[in-house]
Amino acid sequence: MEDMTLVLFGATGDLAQRKLFPALYNLYLDGKLPAKVSIIGLGRKYISDEAFQSKVEKALRAYSRRSVQASNLPDFLSKFRYFTFDATIAESYEKLLELVERRENELEIPQNRLFYLSVAPSLVDVITTNLHASGLDQNEGWKRLIIEKPFGSNIKTARRLNDKLRQTFSEEEIYRIDHYLGKPMVQSLNTLILANPVLDSLLDQKLISNVQITASEVVGVETRADYYDKAGAIRDMVQNHLLQLVMTAALYLPENLAENKTRAKKTEIIKSLRLIPKEEAHQHVVRGQYEAGEIHDVPVIGYKEEQGVDASSKNDTYFAARLAIDHPAWEGIPFYIRTGKRMDKKSTQIVVEFKHKMVDSTKLQGTSPNLLVLEISPNESISLRVNLKEPSGSQFKPVWIDFSTNSENQPEAYELLLFDAILGDSTFFAHWKEVELSWEWIEPLLEAYQEDLLPLHPYRSGSTGPEAADELLQEDQHKWW
Amino acid sequence: MEDMTLVLFGATGDLAQRKLFPALYNLYLDGKLPAKVSIIGLGRKYISDEAFQSKVEKALRAYSRRSVQASNLPDFLSKFRYFTFDATIAESYEKLLELVERRENELEIPQNRLFYLSVAPSLVDVITTNLHASGLDQNEGWKRLIIEKPFGSNIKTARRLNDKLRQTFSEEEIYRIDHYLGKPMVQSLNTLILANPVLDSLLDQKLISNVQITASEVVGVETRADYYDKAGAIRDMVQNHLLQLVMTAALYLPENLAENKTRAKKTEIIKSLRLIPKEEAHQHVVRGQYEAGEIHDVPVIGYKEEQGVDASSKNDTYFAARLAIDHPAWEGIPFYIRTGKRMDKKSTQIVVEFKHKMVDSTKLQGTSPNLLVLEISPNESISLRVNLKEPSGSQFKPVWIDFSTNSENQPEAYELLLFDAILGDSTFFAHWKEVELSWEWIEPLLEAYQEDLLPLHPYRSGSTGPEAADELLQEDQHKWW
Repeated sequence: MEDMTLVLFGATGDLAQRKLFPALYNLYLDGKLPAKVSIIGLGRKYISDEAFQSKVEKALRAYSRRSVQASNLPDFLSKFRYFTFDATIAESYEKLLELVERRENELEIPQNRLFYLSVAPSLVDVITTNLHASGLDQNEGWKRLIIEKPFGSNIKTARRLNDKLRQTFSEEEIYRIDHYLGKPMVQSLNTLILANPVLDSLLDQKLISNVQITASEVVGVETRADYYDKAGAIRDMVQNHLLQLVMTAALYLPENLAENKTRAKKTEIIKSLRLIPKEEAHQHVVRGQYEAGEIHDVPVIGYKEEQGVDASSKNDTYFAARLAIDHPAWEGIPFYIRTGKRMDKKSTQIVVEFKHKMVDSTKLQGTSPNLLVLEISPNESISLRVNLKEPSGSQFKPVWIDFSTNSENQPEAYELLLFDAILGDSTFFAHWKEVELSWEWIEPLLEAYQEDLLPLHPYRSGSTGPEAADELLQEDQHKWW
Repeated sequence: MEDMTLVLFGATGDLAQRKLFPALYNLYLDGKLPAKVSIIGLGRKYISDEAFQSKVEKALRAYSRRSVQASNLPDFLSKFRYFTFDATIAESYEKLLELVERRENELEIPQNRLFYLSVAPSLVDVITTNLHASGLDQNEGWKRLIIEKPFGSNIKTARRLNDKLRQTFSEEEIYRIDHYLGKPMVQSLNTLILANPVLDSLLDQKLISNVQITASEVVGVETRADYYDKAGAIRDMVQNHLLQLVMTAALYLPENLAENKTRAKKTEIIKSLRLIPKEEAHQHVVRGQYEAGEIHDVPVIGYKEEQGVDASSKNDTYFAARLAIDHPAWEGIPFYIRTGKRMDKKSTQIVVEFKHKMVDSTKLQGTSPNLLVLEISPNESISLRVNLKEPSGSQFKPVWIDFSTNSENQPEAYELLLFDAILGDSTFFAHWKEVELSWEWIEPLLEAYQEDLLPLHPYRSGSTGPEAADELLQEDQHKWW
């Protein structure tokens, strides 16, 4: 771990307070920050270094998963400086460079610079242009850029954004955050499989019937209508998180896990994802929008009644699809994905359903397919559903076997991802090829939206989504788990 | 289920009281006895039908796993008759035939006759000869013979015994009890695997490192020195129970479980069991004899001090061996077996050890091979040992995953076996070919015993057996689990 500078654009924003400062503090507690690190927070309003450090402390007290320790807090906070910054003024960058260099000299640290862009998408262009113009990127050490979603709103804007970034940073220097890839279960899946040949052996094409990926939320659009009503579930969840989970899950079949080729394999998978032409979208995709309903006995309003949403909005808050991966390893094994707001529960999980033997059914009464479930959120667990015989009698019943250890106080996604970026390990970030190919897959569906080729199915808040999504699986004699 | 007669030779003996009467009663409670059944108990001393029925009732109250119900007890007992019988007198059989036929007429049941021989081995010859001479076996319905171990004391006596039986019964009519095959876990293994493709997939040659079968007892020779000091562990446990478990475990690889070919497959396995020539026995076999020691803090005497045992006895109370199965499915996968008296705990289990990946060992710190354990006795369970990561940190630790449902009040082995015999299903009985081939495998080892080619290792009571048995596995870089 090399000593370095972290320049945080958007240091007074929500993400910094809720996720980034707590992540840095927890890394610090685990000895996972470099011995010498200069953290420079940027924001538009003027505050002093001391006020900024108090703000950081407040964020830790509110959001850190481990409580703040008086003994080390001053040392931790001493790493932070604040710089009042207007991203649109070239001079700001020159002054920023002065501050960065001054701290590098003070602390005697090499010119390793990590730029974290936690800002509105509209500012990304001007910031990266000026990072270059000011010379902030002409350092002797390494430079890295962490950037948050959205990575464009369609294939064209995504490419334009990427071209911009590439004027200042090489692909190897760009760390695109998809916080689903930072979830401990996703990050530890690889070693968990390596450590357990029995788990490895289950991920076998011959055994698998289908794979189901669900990311359901209980919340509605909240205060984000401005963004969300334009983006919809397809951009907000499917293009990034769900397709990343598809790549992650599919990764484990065409495998030689001993070698770390995650990146190449993910690209191979997303390349193999069969395009759904817009004319056929209605056969494989279900989009939906929530209506009023009840969640945990509390009545909630429909999407069209939400503040900031047009009463005639045709935006999707639910998306389900049947995917085919044209890769020899996944021949004949469908992937079903779904995401929705205002669902009956909050859950992100990958379910692998195994083929079920139907021979001699009288002997196997009560059995149900074996399932391997990777729960990613809100809990982290791996469980296996098997059929066990009742003590006396010949009736089987499905029983869950839980593979998890106690998962209290797991590191948060941002902790793991920040640590990876500090180390320069980009395994769990979204690479341009993946992003681009995801957008290419999404493109015909966006066209189907625009040309109104896909019906918008209303669904009741607090339900499991539109019936059309159940019918999608019934066509294949399957069902959502 | 056809109405039938059960003729029980040895009805006043220990096995009848402790196992057979309770088994019949529990089958009765489960509706697993034929609607009309005539049970005729035979014994040498004179007692009345009423006294016999009281004896049966007493046995139920003492040994039945489910408590006796006053409401149905009289009906159950009414099925029992007693007949004073001297096995060595031909006339006894003629009178027995009269009684059997009288009861068949009274109850209007067809001439289906099940003969259960729970008698000293020396009586088997005369009984089967006379069953035939008296015409008891010339009935219109089916006839079946259940016989208890020992099936001979070496290959010669086993063949002689079998030839005798075959004069009166065909192989299909002979049910050789090996009560290990009646254990619920052994009996349900097949359907459990059928019901769980994920379990099936683990029984894969590519995954398995070795298989270990242990049958350890805490008890010593007890009151059986007369028999045991001649038989030794090799005849008492290895030739029958352990080799049957080897066949059962090995059965699940060269498989097409959907078809019920258990019998053919078991024969295939025992045929493939590589013979150990007597000259090489010391390389693959460890025999032992217990010395004084402590079990659960209670001092116990050594084998040579036991009542009825000669102070110079070279009898084995412990036996361990490395087995090779020359079958393509088991190429390169050793089977280790061991059995002993006065061990540290009572346990019968099959452990499947999986190959362990040793790549990138820093990532896999704390891992240990995956194990699949079938516990057969005293508890019934299937469990899997996997490596899980500790919540925070990168250290793995092995954790047991238990596949069992609550196994209280499982049916006993004799219940399951009697029921199978009533139905005419001989799957879980030892067939002649298996018995014969087992004896053939044992034969050179008996010769090694006689020619003193195998050292007799003393071991302390309450230990895990002689050190030589640990060394046997260390040669292969394995260890007993």
